[in-house]
Parts: sequence; structure tokens; C-alpha cells
Amino acid sequence: MYCNDKCMLLLLIASAALSACFCLHLHKDPVTYIPSDNSVVENGAKNYKWSEEWLYDVPVDHFSFSNDQTFRLRYLINTDHFLTNGPIFLYTGNEGNIELFAQNTGLMWDLAPLFGAAVVFAEHRFYGKSQPFGAQSYARVNNVGYLSSEQALADFAELIRFLKTERLLNARRSPVIAFGGSYGGMLSAWMRIKYPHLVQGSIASSAPVFWFLDMSVPEDAYSHVVKRSFLNSGCAEQNIINAWSALEKLASSASGLDYLNRLFHLESKSHLNKSSDWLMLREYLEEIFESMAMVNYPYPSNYLTELPGWPVKVACGFFNSTQKVSAEESAQSMYALMNLYYNYTGKRETFCINPIVCDDSAYAALGDPFGWPWQSCTEMVMQQCSSGPPNDFFVKNCPFTLEGQLTYCKKIFGKIGYTKSIMRPHWTILNYGHQYPTATNIIFSNGYLDPWSAGGWSQKSEEIRSLVSIIIEDGAHHYDLRGKHPLDTDSVKNARRLEKLYIKKWLKEEKLHSVKKNSY
Amino acid sequence: MYCNDKCMLLLLIASAALSACFCLHLHKDPVTYIPSDNSVVENGAKNYKWSEEWLYDVPVDHFSFSNDQTFRLRYLINTDHFLTNGPIFLYTGNEGNIELFAQNTGLMWDLAPLFGAAVVFAEHRFYGKSQPFGAQSYARVNNVGYLSSEQALADFAELIRFLKTERLLNARRSPVIAFGGSYGGMLSAWMRIKYPHLVQGSIASSAPVFWFLDMSVPEDAYSHVVKRSFLNSGCAEQNIINAWSALEKLASSASGLDYLNRLFHLESKSHLNKSSDWLMLREYLEEIFESMAMVNYPYPSNYLTELPGWPVKVACGFFNSTQKVSAEESAQSMYALMNLYYNYTGKRETFCINPIVCDDSAYAALGDPFGWPWQSCTEMVMQQCSSGPPNDFFVKNCPFTLEGQLTYCKKIFGKIGYTKSIMRPHWTILNYGHQYPTATNIIFSNGYLDPWSAGGWSQKSEEIRSLVSIIIEDGAHHYDLRGKHPLDTDSVKNARRLEKLYIKKWLKEEKLHSVKKNSY
Repeated sequence: MYCNDKCMLLLLIASAALSACFCLHLHKDPVTYIPSDNSVVENGAKNYKWSEEWLYDVPVDHFSFSNDQTFRLRYLINTDHFLTNGPIFLYTGNEGNIELFAQNTGLMWDLAPLFGAAVVFAEHRFYGKSQPFGAQSYARVNNVGYLSSEQALADFAELIRFLKTERLLNARRSPVIAFGGSYGGMLSAWMRIKYPHLVQGSIASSAPVFWFLDMSVPEDAYSHVVKRSFLNSGCAEQNIINAWSALEKLASSASGLDYLNRLFHLESKSHLNKSSDWLMLREYLEEIFESMAMVNYPYPSNYLTELPGWPVKVACGFFNSTQKVSAEESAQSMYALMNLYYNYTGKRETFCINPIVCDDSAYAALGDPFGWPWQSCTEMVMQQCSSGPPNDFFVKNCPFTLEGQLTYCKKIFGKIGYTKSIMRPHWTILNYGHQYPTATNIIFSNGYLDPWSAGGWSQKSEEIRSLVSIIIEDGAHHYDLRGKHPLDTDSVKNARRLEKLYIKKWLKEEKLHSVKKNSY
Repeated sequence: MYCNDKCMLLLLIASAALSACFCLHLHKDPVTYIPSDNSVVENGAKNYKWSEEWLYDVPVDHFSFSNDQTFRLRYLINTDHFLTNGPIFLYTGNEGNIELFAQNTGLMWDLAPLFGAAVVFAEHRFYGKSQPFGAQSYARVNNVGYLSSEQALADFAELIRFLKTERLLNARRSPVIAFGGSYGGMLSAWMRIKYPHLVQGSIASSAPVFWFLDMSVPEDAYSHVVKRSFLNSGCAEQNIINAWSALEKLASSASGLDYLNRLFHLESKSHLNKSSDWLMLREYLEEIFESMAMVNYPYPSNYLTELPGWPVKVACGFFNSTQKVSAEESAQSMYALMNLYYNYTGKRETFCINPIVCDDSAYAALGDPFGWPWQSCTEMVMQQCSSGPPNDFFVKNCPFTLEGQLTYCKKIFGKIGYTKSIMRPHWTILNYGHQYPTATNIIFSNGYLDPWSAGGWSQKSEEIRSLVSIIIEDGAHHYDLRGKHPLDTDSVKNARRLEKLYIKKWLKEEKLHSVKKNSY
């Protein structure tokens, strides 16, 4: 996962150690929003409206009593369709501003009128505007230490109680359905697993719940699915492999470097000046392959960046030559890929690829540049690397090691007090489970072409105790959570149809079996 | 619950505010043990042997990363009967030295040979020798703040991993059955609820899991069941009510005070000197009623104190007169009760009832005088008080109020940094649930004559998804956990028979359904 190296570069670290941050959120949030109280937000084709509100007095630490500080957690809410004791659709926010998820989880908006549901998007602590220590939230280990998945789940538990007993009228018996994608999907599943009395069912989309040590996910699985996605879309594998060699070759001469600087429209401050600089370009491009595989939707979209429909197929048009091509031509294919991913609208004239000097880093755009890196240095230690051909078409950087990850973490967080003992790579699986022997009412949906699917829960039999595995055969990253679209594929339509049916089933069962008193 | 007032007196607090500490552990630990590594411990009739061991490097805080301190947790273990991948019987320790529970949970010792099980007793953090900050564990809110039920459960999770992967040979596929009584029973149930992948079933004996705000347990329920227990054993209710009046009347004169001091063999430092001192005597006696109801076993026992079989019945022999008796005779009945409870062996010559000046307070004997008080001031806020006749035969001190509890807590813990915001009385139910919609494989056993049974889980139908409710009709506090005895009642024999059957069933199902890889 070269994305990881990119993270480090973005954070001014030049080493090749690995982090496990989600590529998903290494990118600039492309969504325009107007963050103000009771704002009306418009999002391109969709027009979702919400009120921006706050849950006050949330304990910074739910599980101990050494720290009695509290903070306010942000959530977005729409009750236009809410009926008495109707369901609450709760998005369990992940690593980013909550507006991003509100605007890209059309499934909730589409289903709400059909179920008489309230729609709520809860922001994850330490992201967006939900900063427990304000501007100092990431300034000390003592502060950022409270950024953890269990604390976030407990925030959501408190929010559910508040919504049902105070915020909403006639909601004391409202069932809650959790929705989430990616890390947010993990949270929605874990919410049902740890708080089944508060959440009656969960849609956990593209949640790599098993991408941890102690489990059997191969460390090079991500890269492998990236390759699968691109080859499925018509890329000639060897052309991509050759292109890396071509870049390296061109970078070995002064004229070649000059060619690359011009070809890639690199700003002068991020010029390639010496042979080894080609690594920087390589990592930048690898990350594009990895990210594009995630957002390979069939219609134009702007989740991570503006892209045409089936962008991987478009990209493969640059890599499907059956002729032998020159080094320059190979490099041109790579430039075309980059221009497609970062400049589909054609507005950019130059690119800045050196995160040490470039201001437009993805982390900065996200708003919380140290959020996911912190999580990947504490409990979300996900083993990822590339083993090269035949597994994938990247350059080998396996194996993943804890030592390498620690080196990365110390470089970023050492100055604020990070030590080796803060990393607990076995905790997530020990805490949430390597299997879910009593869990019910969770849909784990995964896209066959989504690289994260390799760490998802799936089961050969379709259903175990209403734990449901849905594989969307032509699906990318949490495609099913998106709003319906005329170009939707049959497989995503089928996934959403099943999701709707299961939610209906869960709500019906809840109504039949719920204990009537004290329903929160 | 006058026990609560006693707690405060023990802690040099004279107010009448209430705490929710378990009477169970206000008493001196009567068990003799030799605490040393690999010690062999003998316990009267029973002869249980264990090795005293430690789990090292346990995080002080499992759920955040602000504090990377670790400590060592004590556990007792016996593997004499352990077979390859046999079950691990794990006692989830509660508020006291772990030896107390090892010696009084004969059920585990009795069943172990039949199942080829390892027997493990895990100490609860901040009790016994498991002090995360050594002698400073209770010195500051910053330290004792890490005394919480969720942190304790996570300790047990880490212990299970350690036992299965490091400590025990051939135990990677060992299922774990949790056992616990009282607060330990709550922990064993919550362990299955929160960590079903680590614990395959739980015996939660006399666990008042619902004795919290937001639930429907009446605040005077404890006192009511005490009364039920005593009246069932032949006490004449009016005689007890009259005795309180008699004590108050005697205390109203100098000669009466003198009489009481002599009658109760009070040490001079705890003499009753003025009329209002009778309250101190009353609270001391009320606590005896309340505690005796808990340990009303059919045979001589020494769990909280040495007692004859059916001690409540013996005590009722002092209160069953059908004649009108004098004030002195009423007082003599009360003295007989006290002498039975605290001096069954006849070795004591005097009594010290004033906790402000007496050294032999129950808390001091327990070793962690502030443990349960702390828990009752943070998350274990259990509403309890006495409403007087006809509910019970005590003097009314209802209603229970959070303000009263806070006053108590501030008096004890104010000087180490306790503030109002540290108390979170709604958290326990929000966290663990007001119902258990997905839980399986838990037996909730309760004694009909155990005052704590009023807060236990029960269900009219015998079984829901293998959540089993067993009521032991002549049972006191976690009677079923005790070792078998020739005088055992049919109802406890039946309870243990069912428990054995269910454990067998759970283990069989686990064997059939378990995912073979990675079983911890």
C-alpha cells in the first residue's frame, strides 16, 4: 500500500515505513458545503437538507472516572419524514467532517420517507467540528489519547439516548438502524455488537472488520484487489509494470527528469531533481491507482474527487496498448491517469506532488491531518503492503512489520508523547471479536472490486442468525450507501433491495418482541 | 438499607445519606489464607489448592491512549483436571480479595473434574493485591478513576487471551465459562454480553443487574425481601418493630443507656452516651438483619462470618414470643441477634459498634475500604432505602435521592478530587442494557429469600435464547455457587443440576459451531 508511504510524505516523513491509514481519506474532501447552524446544504445532483446540532456534556472518557471533562459532539439531523416512534437512521460517523458522509450516503435519504424515519449523522470525536479539546485536541497524547473507536461508540450511545428522550418527540420506542461505510461501517457493526439494546440493526458497508493482526487477511490483499479491478476493466498488466520501469529509467538522466517535470506539469517547488525523486512520483501515482479502485462508480461522481463514470475503465484506455511502446509513451499513460484523477474538470494547470513543500495535502484538506494516523498508531493497525507481481502491479514493499509501523508513529507523534506501549495492535480483535457468535441483524456488504473487501466479513451461506453477507460483484467502496442513480448496476440495486427488505424485517421483529417499557 | 448509613459511619461520616455499597462486603473477610506464590490454601471443610499468579502489563486504561501505564493483575489457578482444549472456568472477581471467592465458589471446584476444566479466579482491579498504583491506588481521583466495571471486564479479556495462548498448553480452542456471584455475577453476565467471542457461557448468580436508575426496581425492595426472609423463618414482625422502640426508649434515660452498654457488652470507647446514640446501635443491628438474610444457608458456614445452619431461623427464635415483653426483654432479643451473628463461636467478650473509633471496621478488614464506595459514587448507583412498615420492619429513611448520594460521595472522596460530574448514574444501564436482545448462554440464578434478588434478571418463561432464569426458592445470596453439602436443599441441588446441564449444552454447541481457526 503505497498510500501509506504517501501519508508519511504528507507528514514530512521521508522513510518508507508503512502506516495503515485508509486511502479513502487521504484525499481532499471534494464536497462543497456551507457549515453553519441550521444550514441548508446543496450537493450537486442531490439536495439534502439538515440542521446542524450538538450533543452537549459528552464525557471525554466514558469508561473511567479519572477525567471528568466533557465536550460537545456535532450531529446533523433531518426529521421531515419522521413519524411517531418511527425509526432513527443513524450514520455512525468516521474519519472526516460529517457533512462528507451526509452528502454521500444517499441510501439513508432515499429510504427515510419510506420508513417514516429521522435521519441523523453523528460526527466522530476528534474529526470535523467535534474536537474535545478544541484547537489543542491533537497537541498532546493526553488529549488525542481519547480518540478511540470505543469512546466514539459510547458517544453514539449517549446520542441515541438523547435523541429518544429529549431531542425527538414521540421517539422513546423508536428503533435505531445504524449505517456506516468503511471505518464507519466497522463502527455501525460494532455498535450493534456492543450495544444491541440501543441499535436494532446495522448496514455495515465495505467495513474491513477483520483487517487486523491475528486474522488471516493477507498483507498484500489490498494491492491484489486493485490489480483485479484494473484488469477487469481492460488494463494490460504488463503495460503498468513497464510504466514504472519507464519512469525510473527517465529519471536516471537529466534530460529525462526534465521531460518528466514538463510532462507531469509539476510546479517548480515539487520538481524531480535527482534520480531517486522518481520514488515520490511513483508513490503519488500508486495512490491514484489505489484510490481510483475505491471510487470506481458507474456514473460521474465526486466523492473523493470529480471523476467520470467507470473511471478505472477510462484509465485502462491509457494502458491497453498491444504494441511495444517507448519510455516516453509509458510515462504519458501515467500522466493521463493522474490528469484523469486530479483534473477531470480540466481546471488545473499544474500539479504539486511533493508533500513536504506542497500546501494542498490531502490531510490538510480533510481538516484533521493526524486523525487516522493516530488511530493507525493505536488500535487500528492494519497490515498492508505490496508484494509486487504476480500479486499486484506495484513495486514490492512487503513485509509489513510492527517495527516499521512504530517507526512511522514515533516520527509523527513522538514529539507529543507517543511511546511504543501506546500501540495495541491486538486490542481491536480481542475487543470486538474474531467472530460474532451472538450478533444478529447486521448486513456486511462488500464490493468485489473494492480493495477493502478483502478484510470484510463474509460467509458462504447467505445468512447466519440474520448476519447477512452481500457481495456487489461490480461494486467499489460502499457503493450501496450512495443515493440511487439511473446508471446504477443491477448488483447494487439488488444489494439495496435486500438492505431495504432486511431493515423492514428487523423493524417488524422489533415491534413484535420489544419490551414495552424503557425502550432506550 | 441501613447498611449504607453504616458505610458512612465506618468512613467517619455521620450524615444519614445513602450509599449503595453491597452489604455483602461490609464485613470482615473470615477466611484464613496464606498469600504466597504457589501457596496451598486450606479452608475449613474444603481444601482447595491453587497457584497464585500474575498477568503482567495490563493496560490501566483499555479504552483510550492517554495513559500508557500498566499494572499486574492477580489470578489464582488450578489445572489439576485440565484436559487438552478443555474448558476454562473463570471466576470474574468482584469487590474483595480474590481468595474469598476462590474459597466460597465450590461449584467451580466440584464441576472442574467432570469437565476436564482449568479453574481460574481473576481478581478485580483495585481489590486485593491487584492495585494498579500500589499504595497510591486510592490516593487521587486520577488513580482510582480507573476502577470501573468496563476496565475490569477488559482485564478479564486480556487474561483469557493470555491463558489460552501463553499460560496453558493446548488451550487455544478452550471454551471459557464465566462464573460470578453478586457484583461478580453482574460481571460474568456482562462478560458474555460484551465479549461473547471470548466467553461461551456464564453463570451469573444473584446478580442485581437491573438495580439501577431507569429501571423499575423499587428503592425499598431490599428491605422488603429481608422482611420476607425473616417472616418466612418464623419471626413475629411486630416483635422486631417493637424492639426498635424499646431501644430508643431505653436510650432516653441514663439508666437505660447504662443498661444497653452492659447488655451489648460495648467497649467503653463505643459506649452509648446520649439518647441519639441509639441510632448508631440501630444501624449496626439493621445491618445484621440485612446481612444475615444474605447468608442464610442451611448448614454452618463462614462466608461473611461464622454462623449456624439457617441462621435466620435461629435468630427468629429470639423474636417469636406471643407474649407482651418488656423493653429490656426486647433489647435482649436484639443482643441475642448480634451475638449470634458476630459471636457464634463464643470467643468475643466485647463489641465495638462505633465505626468512628473502632479499629475492626469491616472496610479495613476487607483491605480496600474505598473500593465499593467509589463504585457506588461513579457508575454503580443503586437506589436503596427503607420505607418502614408495611414494606419492611426497619425505620423509614426513604426516599433515595441522587443529591443524598452525592453528599455522601463528596464527603468521602471530595478531598481526593471528586466532583459531581464524576457520578454517571445512567451509564451502567445505557452501556450494558435494559434488556439483552442478542445475549445467549447466561444463567441468571436468584434466591427467593436473597434481598438482592429483587434487582435480578428473571423471565416468566424459563428460557429465551438460552437466557435462563432460575429461582432458588429457599435460597440466599449466591447459594448455588457454594460447594455441595449434605444439608443442601432440593432447590439448590436442582439449580446446580440445571447449571451443569446448561454448561454441558453450551460446550457441546460450541464444539459443533466454533470456527476452527483463531479461537481466542
